[in-house]
Amino acid sequence: MSDNWLNKVNWTNDGLVPVIAQDAASGKVLMFAWMNREALKLTAEKGEAIYWSRSRKKLWHKGEESGHTQKVVEIRLDCDEDVVLLKVEQKGGIACHTGREHCFYQKLEKDQWKTTDPILKNPEEIYKR
Amino acid sequence: MSDNWLNKVNWTNDGLVPVIAQDAASGKVLMFAWMNREALKLTAEKGEAIYWSRSRKKLWHKGEESGHTQKVVEIRLDCDEDVVLLKVEQKGGIACHTGREHCFYQKLEKDQWKTTDPILKNPEEIYKR
Repeated sequence: MSDNWLNKVNWTNDGLVPVIAQDAASGKVLMFAWMNREALKLTAEKGEAIYWSRSRKKLWHKGEESGHTQKVVEIRLDCDEDVVLLKVEQKGGIACHTGREHCFYQKLEKDQWKTTDPILKNPEEIYKR
Repeated sequence: MSDNWLNKVNWTNDGLVPVIAQDAASGKVLMFAWMNREALKLTAEKGEAIYWSRSRKKLWHKGEESGHTQKVVEIRLDCDEDVVLLKVEQKGGIACHTGREHCFYQKLEKDQWKTTDPILKNPEEIYKR
């Protein structure tokens, strides 16, 4: 597989691209993260989401600890070629480290953020390994 | 309406937050942009998406030229409180400046980006005003 397609991505000065992960079946937006060139290449090659952890400054194979991997269904690029949309099949039905289905569980109601989604599995249970 | 909810957002060093705009009805991810504090405040107050244009360095009322405004249905915040998910009703059914429904119209097939979505309206027609 040629790497030329990676050259089309407009990487930030830090060599990253923002990535939106969306559940391919439900359409739910699961999470937002970043990839560098190697992460995007590996994601395409392995068919599982591999991000770049900006805090840990290393590749982050999503689900490496929790088992909640993301199987890649589609990889999309936007009009400015600087944002990636990843459609995935979310293993375990949990994308968020809080044990929720997705990360966007806080909804603005009037002037308050309200938690709308239940914890499906206790994080202590998820990360006990 | 109190502004306290804006303090919960973890703004970048540049005072911005990444925003994912999603069609509230279809679930399609329409576009990705940025907001500063004022943009998010105005978005909530006016019920229409107002972004911060990083290239033009000014507030950008989405649709101000094209008429393709975005009516706010929901504003959500992620677990780290540093990404906003905006569920919207897309006026005109066109979110992308290329005249397409959404910006993510390039799909990776093997090692090539393929355009999957048709141009619904000629951009020259959209921006002629």
